[in-house]
Amino acid sequence: MNIKDKSTQELNALCSDIRSEILRVVSKNGGHLSSTLGATEIIVAMHKVFDSKKDPFIFDVSHQSYAHKLLTDRWEAFDTLRQFNGLCGYTKPSESEDDYFVAGHSSTSISLGVGAAKAIALKGEENKRIPVVMIGDGSMTAGMVYEALNELGDRKYPMIIILNDNEMSIAKPIGAMSRMLSSAMASPFYQRFKKTTESFVDNFGDGAHYIAKRMEEGLKLITPGILFEEMGINYIGPVDGHNIEQLVDIFKTAKTMGKPVIIHAQTLKGKGYDIAEGKEEKWHGVGPFELSDGHAKKKSSTKSATQIYTEALMHLADKNEKIVGATAAMPSGTGLSALMEKYPNRFWDVAIAEQHAVTSMAALAKEGFKPFCTIYSTFLQRAYDQVIHDTCLMDLPVVFALDRAGIVGEDGETHQGVFDISFLRAIPNMTLFAPRDEKSFHQAMAFAAEYQHPCSLRYPRGSFVESDLPESLSFEKGKSQLLIAKESDTLFIGYGNGVGRAYETMQFLDEEVSLLDLRFVKPLDEEMLRSLAQKHKKWFVFSDSAKMGGVGSALLEFLAENNITDVLVTSFEYSDDFITHGNTKLVEESLGILPKQLAQQVQGLLEH
Amino acid sequence: MNIKDKSTQELNALCSDIRSEILRVVSKNGGHLSSTLGATEIIVAMHKVFDSKKDPFIFDVSHQSYAHKLLTDRWEAFDTLRQFNGLCGYTKPSESEDDYFVAGHSSTSISLGVGAAKAIALKGEENKRIPVVMIGDGSMTAGMVYEALNELGDRKYPMIIILNDNEMSIAKPIGAMSRMLSSAMASPFYQRFKKTTESFVDNFGDGAHYIAKRMEEGLKLITPGILFEEMGINYIGPVDGHNIEQLVDIFKTAKTMGKPVIIHAQTLKGKGYDIAEGKEEKWHGVGPFELSDGHAKKKSSTKSATQIYTEALMHLADKNEKIVGATAAMPSGTGLSALMEKYPNRFWDVAIAEQHAVTSMAALAKEGFKPFCTIYSTFLQRAYDQVIHDTCLMDLPVVFALDRAGIVGEDGETHQGVFDISFLRAIPNMTLFAPRDEKSFHQAMAFAAEYQHPCSLRYPRGSFVESDLPESLSFEKGKSQLLIAKESDTLFIGYGNGVGRAYETMQFLDEEVSLLDLRFVKPLDEEMLRSLAQKHKKWFVFSDSAKMGGVGSALLEFLAENNITDVLVTSFEYSDDFITHGNTKLVEESLGILPKQLAQQVQGLLEH
Repeated sequence: MNIKDKSTQELNALCSDIRSEILRVVSKNGGHLSSTLGATEIIVAMHKVFDSKKDPFIFDVSHQSYAHKLLTDRWEAFDTLRQFNGLCGYTKPSESEDDYFVAGHSSTSISLGVGAAKAIALKGEENKRIPVVMIGDGSMTAGMVYEALNELGDRKYPMIIILNDNEMSIAKPIGAMSRMLSSAMASPFYQRFKKTTESFVDNFGDGAHYIAKRMEEGLKLITPGILFEEMGINYIGPVDGHNIEQLVDIFKTAKTMGKPVIIHAQTLKGKGYDIAEGKEEKWHGVGPFELSDGHAKKKSSTKSATQIYTEALMHLADKNEKIVGATAAMPSGTGLSALMEKYPNRFWDVAIAEQHAVTSMAALAKEGFKPFCTIYSTFLQRAYDQVIHDTCLMDLPVVFALDRAGIVGEDGETHQGVFDISFLRAIPNMTLFAPRDEKSFHQAMAFAAEYQHPCSLRYPRGSFVESDLPESLSFEKGKSQLLIAKESDTLFIGYGNGVGRAYETMQFLDEEVSLLDLRFVKPLDEEMLRSLAQKHKKWFVFSDSAKMGGVGSALLEFLAENNITDVLVTSFEYSDDFITHGNTKLVEESLGILPKQLAQQVQGLLEH
Repeated sequence: MNIKDKSTQELNALCSDIRSEILRVVSKNGGHLSSTLGATEIIVAMHKVFDSKKDPFIFDVSHQSYAHKLLTDRWEAFDTLRQFNGLCGYTKPSESEDDYFVAGHSSTSISLGVGAAKAIALKGEENKRIPVVMIGDGSMTAGMVYEALNELGDRKYPMIIILNDNEMSIAKPIGAMSRMLSSAMASPFYQRFKKTTESFVDNFGDGAHYIAKRMEEGLKLITPGILFEEMGINYIGPVDGHNIEQLVDIFKTAKTMGKPVIIHAQTLKGKGYDIAEGKEEKWHGVGPFELSDGHAKKKSSTKSATQIYTEALMHLADKNEKIVGATAAMPSGTGLSALMEKYPNRFWDVAIAEQHAVTSMAALAKEGFKPFCTIYSTFLQRAYDQVIHDTCLMDLPVVFALDRAGIVGEDGETHQGVFDISFLRAIPNMTLFAPRDEKSFHQAMAFAAEYQHPCSLRYPRGSFVESDLPESLSFEKGKSQLLIAKESDTLFIGYGNGVGRAYETMQFLDEEVSLLDLRFVKPLDEEMLRSLAQKHKKWFVFSDSAKMGGVGSALLEFLAENNITDVLVTSFEYSDDFITHGNTKLVEESLGILPKQLAQQVQGLLEH
């Protein structure tokens, strides 16, 4: 039966089916759980009132969109969610025409809505189509949202913005916006208004009291919406985001208003799964788990790079009170939560606000502190100018700790941490290095803590590739470490996790090969490289990064500047394509960069 | 006499002296005029009440800071403003300890203030120091401001934010924020409140009317500040930003409040110079002019690249109604104002909001339009993730037209357009090209208008280097043009304005040289390059861009992937330093990249 024809009761039953299916598949495959469960009624109501074949359905971050996928011919395929060659965990137009846009980074939705609204106006389709945006309260902290609201409030394009407010964002509520949205809040404006009127109302009769009370109530009700109304955007709410009947009614009204409307829907994160209901960060994104008790199906036996980062930073922060740090709404993802707990005055979650995170940390560096700005590689793209203009131009000792560098697995295209070397390397005053295992990570962090200029280190999602290579020596600026020295024409150069990959590749080769842990891609160890260029004429580069402008490119620039033309460099970095989602090993296999595959390539090139 | 001891009358006289000096020097050297004239009293009052040796004085964009420079031991040196080796047009700590931070890009100030406030709290200096931020209303549109206010409203660090509201931003007021700040506005919230209360107030006596009126007045007064109060930040205003006595009083009060305070000061742009008073964009930044009548001292005789851009885009937009475009608060700087005037429904100024500009244009591309996103090279750094995540990942045909690519002259370090090739080249689906003169610019634009994928073209501030090279042929994806073919070991490869530079360099050489106009740095013209690699073994690269990850790097990657090891590549792109301000020719001379200097380098390398 078409959703348009369903009764409220039938729609509620549909929500129940959707929740069961989401729970079944996410408990098996892992994925985003609590926010998508909370958004079920909203999405069902969206499909009841609007038409995703026609109206641009724009899901912010889009990890809340699972119910939308189920409602748009993907129920059968939903089993393959986030798996290699399966459904993407985010909206993706190449997967379905019902997915208007790609979104994996937050806070782009209202800008997309404004762009779509401009197009609709130009095409004269205002009476036929309307952008329908769904955005969570956590995404409202990023400045981009505000830039878009600013133009929208001015131009007043018809648009529906559904604010899915589960009072939680990814971690706990952060910042003024989140507080403001809470209907239980004591608005400073409202409080002041009450205080200043109370005194003189007392001088008048009952009528005055009645009026004052009515006004107070009116204000109280209107309070969460003042900001939006002030910006020129109509506000409706708060409404119960799990009451389908009410949602459908409001959506129908909003559809006919011919102007921008924000519908503030309050929802319960994890709704429908007792164990996750109302719970915080833990149930936002999960690995496979037992549906009956919520326990994770398997725990990784090896320590993750993030865990090592936390331990190393804690060790340094214990000794040096100048060490401070920030995360942009990823306290547990980046491992900074332990530091925030132990040192709440030195480590901050600034909400989804990478630009602000970087620039505020730069000011702390100017004041003599040592900030560790801890951000996923892919999210640092959000603060590129702040790295250049506010940090490197001032030559300030901010450390950029880039988690999730390289292929990130199931999150896929939007989250791959592949561009950081290319975009950071060109910035003057920047130093770039990478650890290859637990010990070198601690050493790299010790170096970072003492270094008096901007620097950045990168490390993978999950664990480092293990190897039984010689132990890492302490980090010294621009110094590499020669791990294996053989009398061979062939030199493997590894960077970060690429060292382990190079080592594994060697295991598949008969030929003897030398191995350099580059450690610093900027500045390069020129002395070592010059010496190696005399001994080894075939260099192979291993690094989990984009080839263009990456590690291989840095080495080529070095060789050219030193007039060395007899060395052939082959880089096994990622070629010029966006990299899909799925199990990391399967993705790597599809790219031909598993150690066994690389060994074949090396063999081929050496025989050539 | 120390400013602390001056009377109000003396402070007013000081303001007059400051204005005269600013007018004298800016009319001679060029610079930012109207906003700095408008901010004079505010800055004098800041120095009266606070201490820039101790309190972080943070000027947003900092082109309003000339009065501050004059008040901090730089009156003598002010004559050298914006000149090579002279004073910088922006705050710069290496120039004076009274300059807390570098700022040339807008909207960083509140984040810096939050960082400084955190540092002050950690040092236990709350009773001794307080961050004093000055920000213009134009800067309030960028999302970064909002990210910072969000954290500030939550944590409530003591801080003074002076909102210098000249109701103008750089161009005309844009967006909801600007409208909201205007005290004359009819607030929708206030209007609604009035309407809903009027009816039932009529049913009661005079007392009720009196109360309702008082409440209305209270609301009216408070309206411009609601947004800030709602965010948890105290609001004072609006106040007269030219009344020193009042400013000093308010600053003294705010200093003791122990919490974040926004002081909303209304000022007149260009105050004190009749010809510029209240005028819009024209007097924001100016070249040298006659003080008596305001006329520019000299006009450039050659057409600027921006002018060509405007003509080319107008020509295309006239023919193709699918062409749309956006600027982020630089309508005249980017030359988009003519298009906004002729096609107000297709070309938008979205205010200082590069992130929103890019992503909203991506949505228009998705809807079948052809957006020309026109942004200075240096400001595209503000929207890097939006280029990757919202444009290239979707493979949408947005054109990024990057004005001010290369050295920009007097604006200097913060504004140099040098990194774009490095940061854009690594993005999959992106195509990069550049015109070298007027004709090729039209051809490049024609190509861009037809191209169905993301692409970016770059062009210099001012004019192209002139030459009498063969005429440009029409642009074809990934195709270069061989301009001079000689039987010589030496090949010059120019990109964009670098072609002219290469040509000029040739004029100083005896040797015969071939010259290739590369045109596309991504994708490269592999066929042409392979053929040239057989004939020419010494390649010299000319491009106004950073060397790391730049054009030379692209060529080296190509050679390596093609196993070509007998070609020596020398790149004359910018080396790894931030580039200072001043007359472009003097700056280039200091870098050793004037054609004559390059010719000497080439000669040296060829003899080597």
